[in-house]
Amino acid sequence: MKKAETKKTGNPGGDIRPIVCRDGKIFFLDQTALPSRTRWLEIGSAEACRDAIARLAVRGAPAIGIAAAFGMVLASRSCAETTAEGCRAHMKRARDLLALSRPTAVNLFWALDRVEKKIEETLSNSRGSPKMLEELEAAVEEEALSIQREDEEVCRAIGVHGQKILRDGMTILTHCNAGALATSRYGTALAPVYVAKERGLDVRVFADETRPLLQGSRLTAYELLRAGIGVTLITDGAAAAVMRRGWIDACIVGCDRVAANGDTANKIGTYGIALLAKLHAIPFYVACPLSTIDLSASGGEDIQIEERGGEEVVTVMGRRTAPAGVNVFNPAFDVTPNRFISGFITEKGIVRAPYAAKLEKLKTI
Amino acid sequence: MKKAETKKTGNPGGDIRPIVCRDGKIFFLDQTALPSRTRWLEIGSAEACRDAIARLAVRGAPAIGIAAAFGMVLASRSCAETTAEGCRAHMKRARDLLALSRPTAVNLFWALDRVEKKIEETLSNSRGSPKMLEELEAAVEEEALSIQREDEEVCRAIGVHGQKILRDGMTILTHCNAGALATSRYGTALAPVYVAKERGLDVRVFADETRPLLQGSRLTAYELLRAGIGVTLITDGAAAAVMRRGWIDACIVGCDRVAANGDTANKIGTYGIALLAKLHAIPFYVACPLSTIDLSASGGEDIQIEERGGEEVVTVMGRRTAPAGVNVFNPAFDVTPNRFISGFITEKGIVRAPYAAKLEKLKTI
Repeated sequence: MKKAETKKTGNPGGDIRPIVCRDGKIFFLDQTALPSRTRWLEIGSAEACRDAIARLAVRGAPAIGIAAAFGMVLASRSCAETTAEGCRAHMKRARDLLALSRPTAVNLFWALDRVEKKIEETLSNSRGSPKMLEELEAAVEEEALSIQREDEEVCRAIGVHGQKILRDGMTILTHCNAGALATSRYGTALAPVYVAKERGLDVRVFADETRPLLQGSRLTAYELLRAGIGVTLITDGAAAAVMRRGWIDACIVGCDRVAANGDTANKIGTYGIALLAKLHAIPFYVACPLSTIDLSASGGEDIQIEERGGEEVVTVMGRRTAPAGVNVFNPAFDVTPNRFISGFITEKGIVRAPYAAKLEKLKTI
Repeated sequence: MKKAETKKTGNPGGDIRPIVCRDGKIFFLDQTALPSRTRWLEIGSAEACRDAIARLAVRGAPAIGIAAAFGMVLASRSCAETTAEGCRAHMKRARDLLALSRPTAVNLFWALDRVEKKIEETLSNSRGSPKMLEELEAAVEEEALSIQREDEEVCRAIGVHGQKILRDGMTILTHCNAGALATSRYGTALAPVYVAKERGLDVRVFADETRPLLQGSRLTAYELLRAGIGVTLITDGAAAAVMRRGWIDACIVGCDRVAANGDTANKIGTYGIALLAKLHAIPFYVACPLSTIDLSASGGEDIQIEERGGEEVVTVMGRRTAPAGVNVFNPAFDVTPNRFISGFITEKGIVRAPYAAKLEKLKTI
C-alpha cells in the first residue's frame, strides 16, 4: 500500500455529500473542521481512510460504512500481488486495519463484510488471470459505489415517506446530527426536511446544540444553513421552553440502535426530548433505516450504553470548563421507551405502534 | 473617589464566601477565573466594584446586592466633602454608578436603597458635625455588613428548613449555580446540602453543566468539590437518563423571581428538569428567599423573560461552535408552572401547594 496521504482541495461535491468519488479520486468532507472551514480531504490510501474515520473527519454510522468501503477501494488499487492468495492477504490486511478505526458502528463491519464477499467472488472467478488485479479494483469500486448509492436511496425513501407527517409551514425540532453529513446524502432525521424543501415546502428546524460534542451546532446548523433551510440553534436546556411556546410541530431524531419492541437508543438527550414532547402533545418520530433495527435485542434493556470519558464534558472545543477532579457521568446514548415514540420513518414507510410485529415483518420481508 | 484598583491576593476567606470584608479591606472571589484559578480581587473603589459586578466577577442576585453595598462603603471612604449636601451628592454619584452595573438584579437596587436610607439618616443626625465623615463611613459599613449577615442568616435558615426533605445517602440534582458563590454563604439551593454536610449526613449532588454559561460546571462543581461534597457533573441532556436510572432522590434549584401563585422563573433549563422530575416521580423543590417572591406578578405570564445574545450559544469559553449566520434563540430564563413544584424551601419553612395564600402570608407577616 502507498504511504498514507491526505491532500486539501476545493469542494468537489455539489450539495452536501460527505463522501465523494470523482474521476476515481476519493474525497471526505473534513467534519472536524466544520463549521469554521469547509475542507475536503483527498484520501489516498486505506491507512489515510482509517485515520480519517478514527479522528472523526467522517462520522455517522452509514457514512462510516461507506468510507470504509472506499478504504477497501484504495487498498485494491495499491495491490501488486500476482496470485489470488496474495491479493486475498493484501485485502485482508486492509480490512483488519479499517475494522479497527471505530469500535461500535455496526455499519462499518457490515460494509466491510459486503466488500469482502465481493472480493472473494471476484478472485474465485479470476482464477489468477492476467486481468485479476484490474477486475479486483473494478469489483471493489463497484461495491463501494453500490453501498453509497443504496444508502442514498434509503435516505431519500425516508425523506419521501416523511412527507406524510410534514405540512407547509411546520417547524421540526431535531437533536444531534442525523443529516446528510452522517450518511451518503439527505441524512435520516433531516431527509424529510430536505425532500420537503425540494418540493417547495417551507419547513423550519430548531436544532439542539447537543452537548457534549455539539453535533447540533457544528454539523446540523451547518448543513441546514448551507441548504437554505431556516434553522434556529438552541441549547439543550431550552428545548422545553421552546415546546411550551408552541413553536414545535414535531420532533424527528435519528437512532443508533432500535430494539425489536421499538425501544430506541440514540444520542444522549433524546430520551428527555421524547418525554418533553409527550408532555407538550408534540409528535416524536424516529427516522430509522431498517438496518438499524436489531431484532436480537428484545427491548431497551438489551442495548448496552457506551459511557465515554469525562473530558468531553469538562472541556468544550479544547477549553477547560470544570474544576480538576470532578466526577463526570458521560453516557453517549440513552434509550427512549417505545411508548414515547409516535412512529418510525423507515425506507419502507412509517411504522406506528404496536411495533414488535411490524418491525420484525419489515426486517424479514 | 480614588482611581479604580484591583489587587490579586491570597484567599482571605475560610470556606466559600464570595465577598469578604477583612481588616476593613474588601475582597471579591473572581468568579470569571473559576474553576481554573481561585483568585481574590481586592476592591479599592466604587468604580472597581462596579466593574467587578459588570464583568461578572461577582454574580448571583444576593451576592450582587451585597457587593454593591460594599461599593458604597468604598465610596464613603473616599468622601472628602465638608457639608452634608456635599456628602449626599458624592454618595449619590456612587449609587448611580453602581446601579448601572447590571440591569435586572432586583437585589442590587434593594441593597442600594437600604444603604441610601442609612446615609440619609446619618447625615440628618450629624448636622455637619466634625465627625460627619467618620459617622458616614461607619454607618454605611455597618449597613453593608448587616445586609451580608442577614443574607447569610436567610441562606442558613433555608439550609436548616431544607433538612426536612433530606436523608442520609440522598442524591440531589441541581441546575445552574444557586450556591454559596451566588450569595453571602451557603447559597439557596445548595444550603440544605451544606447544612446536611455540617450535620454529618452523606448527601451527594448531580450538577447540570447549564449551558450556555456553564455555571454548573464552572461554579457549582467548584464549590461543592471544595467543600468535600460528592459531586458528579453531567450535560443538561443527560439529566433525564440519570433520573431514569433511579439515581436522583430530589431536585433542588434556585429562583430568579417567584410569582404570587408560585410560578417560578429560573435559569433556562429549569422547566424541563421540573417536567422530567414529575414524570420520574422525583420531588422538585425551589429554594426561595422570601425576597424573591414578587406578589405584583400574579402568575408566570407576568414575568418577562430576558432573551440574551446568540453569541453565548455559538461560542463556548471563547471558541466558536456554530456556523456564522445561524439564528439563535437564547432565553436566559424559563418559567416553571406551580403545579410542577413540590414545595418552596424558604427561610421561614417549606411551603407546599396551594401556594397563593401561603406565599402572600409569608411575605406580609
